Amino acid sequence: MFLNITQKIIKSHLVSGNMIAGEEISIKIDQTLTQDSTGTMAYLEFEAIGIPRVKTKRSVAYIDHNTLQSGFENADDHKYIQTVTKKHGIYFSRPGNGICHQVHLERFGIPGQTLLGSDSHTPTGGGLGMLAIGAGGLDVAVAMGGGAYYITMPKVVKVNLVGKLKPWVAAKDIILEVLRLLTVKGGVGKVIEYSGEGVKTLSVPERATITNMGAELGATTSVFPSDDITKEFLKAQGRESDFSYILPDDDAAYDEEITIDLSKLVPLAAKPHMPDNVDTVKNIGKIKVDQVAIGSCTNSSYMDMMKVAKILKGKTVAEDVSLVISPGSRQVLNMLSQNGALADMISAGARILETACGPCIGMGQSPKTDAISLRTFNRNFEGRSGTKSAQVYLVSPETAALSAINGYLSDPTELDISNEIEMPEKFLINDNMVVEPAPENNDVEVVRGPNIKEYPVNGKLEMSVTGKALIKVEDNITTDHIMPSNAKLLPFRSNVPYLSNFCLAPCDDKFPERAKENGGGFIIAGSNYGQGSSREHAALAPLYLGIKGVIAKSFARIHMANLINSGILPMTFADEADYDKIDMMDTLVIDNLLDSVKNDNSLVVKNVTKGTEFKVNFALSDRQRDIMALGGLLNYTKEMSK
Amino acid sequence: MFLNITQKIIKSHLVSGNMIAGEEISIKIDQTLTQDSTGTMAYLEFEAIGIPRVKTKRSVAYIDHNTLQSGFENADDHKYIQTVTKKHGIYFSRPGNGICHQVHLERFGIPGQTLLGSDSHTPTGGGLGMLAIGAGGLDVAVAMGGGAYYITMPKVVKVNLVGKLKPWVAAKDIILEVLRLLTVKGGVGKVIEYSGEGVKTLSVPERATITNMGAELGATTSVFPSDDITKEFLKAQGRESDFSYILPDDDAAYDEEITIDLSKLVPLAAKPHMPDNVDTVKNIGKIKVDQVAIGSCTNSSYMDMMKVAKILKGKTVAEDVSLVISPGSRQVLNMLSQNGALADMISAGARILETACGPCIGMGQSPKTDAISLRTFNRNFEGRSGTKSAQVYLVSPETAALSAINGYLSDPTELDISNEIEMPEKFLINDNMVVEPAPENNDVEVVRGPNIKEYPVNGKLEMSVTGKALIKVEDNITTDHIMPSNAKLLPFRSNVPYLSNFCLAPCDDKFPERAKENGGGFIIAGSNYGQGSSREHAALAPLYLGIKGVIAKSFARIHMANLINSGILPMTFADEADYDKIDMMDTLVIDNLLDSVKNDNSLVVKNVTKGTEFKVNFALSDRQRDIMALGGLLNYTKEMSK
Repeated sequence: MFLNITQKIIKSHLVSGNMIAGEEISIKIDQTLTQDSTGTMAYLEFEAIGIPRVKTKRSVAYIDHNTLQSGFENADDHKYIQTVTKKHGIYFSRPGNGICHQVHLERFGIPGQTLLGSDSHTPTGGGLGMLAIGAGGLDVAVAMGGGAYYITMPKVVKVNLVGKLKPWVAAKDIILEVLRLLTVKGGVGKVIEYSGEGVKTLSVPERATITNMGAELGATTSVFPSDDITKEFLKAQGRESDFSYILPDDDAAYDEEITIDLSKLVPLAAKPHMPDNVDTVKNIGKIKVDQVAIGSCTNSSYMDMMKVAKILKGKTVAEDVSLVISPGSRQVLNMLSQNGALADMISAGARILETACGPCIGMGQSPKTDAISLRTFNRNFEGRSGTKSAQVYLVSPETAALSAINGYLSDPTELDISNEIEMPEKFLINDNMVVEPAPENNDVEVVRGPNIKEYPVNGKLEMSVTGKALIKVEDNITTDHIMPSNAKLLPFRSNVPYLSNFCLAPCDDKFPERAKENGGGFIIAGSNYGQGSSREHAALAPLYLGIKGVIAKSFARIHMANLINSGILPMTFADEADYDKIDMMDTLVIDNLLDSVKNDNSLVVKNVTKGTEFKVNFALSDRQRDIMALGGLLNYTKEMSK
Repeated sequence: MFLNITQKIIKSHLVSGNMIAGEEISIKIDQTLTQDSTGTMAYLEFEAIGIPRVKTKRSVAYIDHNTLQSGFENADDHKYIQTVTKKHGIYFSRPGNGICHQVHLERFGIPGQTLLGSDSHTPTGGGLGMLAIGAGGLDVAVAMGGGAYYITMPKVVKVNLVGKLKPWVAAKDIILEVLRLLTVKGGVGKVIEYSGEGVKTLSVPERATITNMGAELGATTSVFPSDDITKEFLKAQGRESDFSYILPDDDAAYDEEITIDLSKLVPLAAKPHMPDNVDTVKNIGKIKVDQVAIGSCTNSSYMDMMKVAKILKGKTVAEDVSLVISPGSRQVLNMLSQNGALADMISAGARILETACGPCIGMGQSPKTDAISLRTFNRNFEGRSGTKSAQVYLVSPETAALSAINGYLSDPTELDISNEIEMPEKFLINDNMVVEPAPENNDVEVVRGPNIKEYPVNGKLEMSVTGKALIKVEDNITTDHIMPSNAKLLPFRSNVPYLSNFCLAPCDDKFPERAKENGGGFIIAGSNYGQGSSREHAALAPLYLGIKGVIAKSFARIHMANLINSGILPMTFADEADYDKIDMMDTLVIDNLLDSVKNDNSLVVKNVTKGTEFKVNFALSDRQRDIMALGGLLNYTKEMSK
């Protein structure tokens, strides 16, 4: 049988199940990564499971989210993560060492291996030919403990790249084009696999930009081949021994296929407030810009930064624009500081931020009221910048840099300078900010600050539940709506009781209070509920508030898994028209919840208020039935390891 | 008559009064500066006064405090300041251009001129031979309008520097020694004037470190001569034409004199939680360190940074230490990025922050719970770091850098490398981040975001007031206690109604509520009340809460002026023993407030609850009597300009 890359990697890691799209399979995880905002919880969970040492080939903890540190909570989290990882066999990338995905690509990723990360942009590793998947912290904790990772066997979409990008058109424009074609729902249940002659024209960091932002398609992950270009990249990173070819069989089959002619692409932008709201920079026109932000795990590689420096050199950032640049890793920053490119940026008036996620996650640099902000990031959800009224456009670093100089949205293909940048033959290699774990049977003391609260654990599933429809939300509700993630709340990622006060507040700020007053209940939602980040807090906060189930038209993949892992049943309307028949505060009753979860794929919900009833479906594997019955994955994992 | 430097500059700027220590004088102000956290209010006040264009020789607005921008408020403030300054003739230093005092020293300060700044570390300019004084925003607004600045004619303390510092002993150690000798109260009503052969061994940035931190003495300001070293510095900044010699007359008289032998100094540290709690690094011992922070307006010059880079080069920051470095200006950062020193810092594992105040003002980088944090800053007040339990030590950059490498407090004189750094013959000059004001009669639109609230204005003084003693606090209450300044509150500097909810909360978090419930009242305090920053919000928040007077054992100078400017009477106990006889919530009555303020220097306060009475004093100039009677300086300024 001829296999594509996705199938090859899955096959070599398959633990259970059949590789038939739509069926549940489980795979062995070679590597894990965490960042600090989800990591604290992941390690609390790992500790709760009770295994002394990670069983992965390599696990790495990064500090890149909460680096502003406004209050003791962040530094306490960092110290907790630094000590708990040292104790249990995990590498620790110190604050300032860079963004997890960029550093992992540079220093740790290995073609053909599986990577599970508690961050939705873990698919960045697909740029190296890894099967790199974002998941909730608990899934990652289980994987660190040697447990398999369960997914639905994905369909594989072949994106056939032909031709070559014109000067100053960027990898970002490729993924924006894919988003325009497929939409933010288009990747659900699928892996996006890049193929064709055009692949050879793209460097590993460019490929990583594309796989990174494949998360915005809702895809399970995205993957590029591991080829000679990958080999050169790893060699330049001093890691040639980590290289192997990962290529699809010549006659590999795909479930879908699209073709993109790179030579026809032009600079694109995702307009407010969705990454798939894409148009050409030319069509959008020369809108006046207040802020330009360059960086993030999507576009902060050495090559990205060098192009930006080239455009900025000898120029001055327009008077009304604040330009902030956060290089993606210490390797990148250090190289720029040695070769003069950083000086060029500073001379032009760029504000250099720490090598971290920064403004991409609303961690500082919130623009002014009603600002137009151009960002090289991966998401432009409303309010994510920290400024509700801001209009965020996602663009390439090249478009961003030129626009910062001009003061208005500008098409970089109009530049009359060469876009050639040499990929370095050797990157600057210095891993002195990566702390190695202690040997086995160490006596490292794990330091727990006062903001580190216990992981909330659900009870076993009840036979019958009654509760009110506490909130009714629209389509495309993101995890930023469900559990806002901003500079004020990120410090409390290890404190679910506090966080839950802000659950779904962007939709209705009375929701948390109402949930508490009513002793919990149900969430009613439209389609694609829970898109966006992998944060399990979007399930843990509802759990803490007593949510018994979410009834939606459809769910985003990671969030659905997180709900199940928390023991909250994700249900979809059998007839979407029933969505319109529920009003907020209707009382809903499910009489046979436990039995249905154990044996069926659907159940009937009674709307006592309206005197009606409607059918909902749920798709659970046998394992997920057991997880739900026991009240979540932590209970299940403990039960299984008895 | 033979004059010292202080007297010379005052004499050449005297508008009213006699130059007799203790008498009120007023002086003409040549230059003003503001930073953004006090600046928004200063410009609202300037607008309220209603003068179309500044009348100073040069006024500059800096953005250096609220640069994290967690929320739209900061960027809105920046935009307001950028537009209001452009309209009214003020230079605007864009965010990222650096810390006000460092940039002002480099690019704008002029020997022999007067500088009034809405930041308590404005005396930094004394390093250039300026008479540079920190004041409330309203004083600065009045000065921008051409009004004189009123102060008490200071005593002048001669600090006679002899000898030369040993290698790796620093300017910071000199000012720490002065603080050890004089204490945080020792400078009240005085100017500290540096003299002697030792002066010639100190560069302008080193002198500026000393005058900057002279603010911690409670001094009116500190000043160095302008000599050949000053000339070289200005020449290297391309500003030789701004130079003039400012030297004391040979037989100038001083009110006090101390001598410090530089050759005998050793590395010092101010221990928690006061800048005068000074001991030698050796005596304190090799305490384990969690965080090291290098930067701030005190110690972020090119020379400071080069020494740090020299110590860090080829080393690695200790595993348990987070080292953050914020260079003081874009000039400094840019030079470091060109000469390889920044690369050396990054290679060692330093986290490079934006060129701004940063952690010095609690704007990020709060250390972990119970952390030991070494900082090159000027203040180590409890909780200022954002972490209440942190133990902050103030040290030189040299001590900080070596300690970061070792992981414990370390004496840099044990280094076996040369401490020689060449002062550059030419600094990198690039003012493209300074926006020039628009021409007169421009039509610049001033942009006001929704967080910019009106300036609170007091009513005219009443004849009789009754109120409860709403709070009773100890000695040495700082402006950080009265109006906390941290990352969460700084965005609201232009929103006094919101800020007032946190007034005096570090002492008693029920105070704001109690003040509101009781319709205002009195604050009872120990000695040196209001030390620390110049922030007038420490007067405006009490004004908003209805505070009618503050009765203390003594006041810090700037805060006392800010209280008067807000129309709140600062009273001192005639007999300090009366402090002990007041309990919180006693009802106090002043029957003849208006008459006393107009005509007397004391009045009697009745304690109705206790059935006692006691005498309090106040020291008001005739002008201040008028200001108090009219309910504050804004009312007075408007009245005078009628």
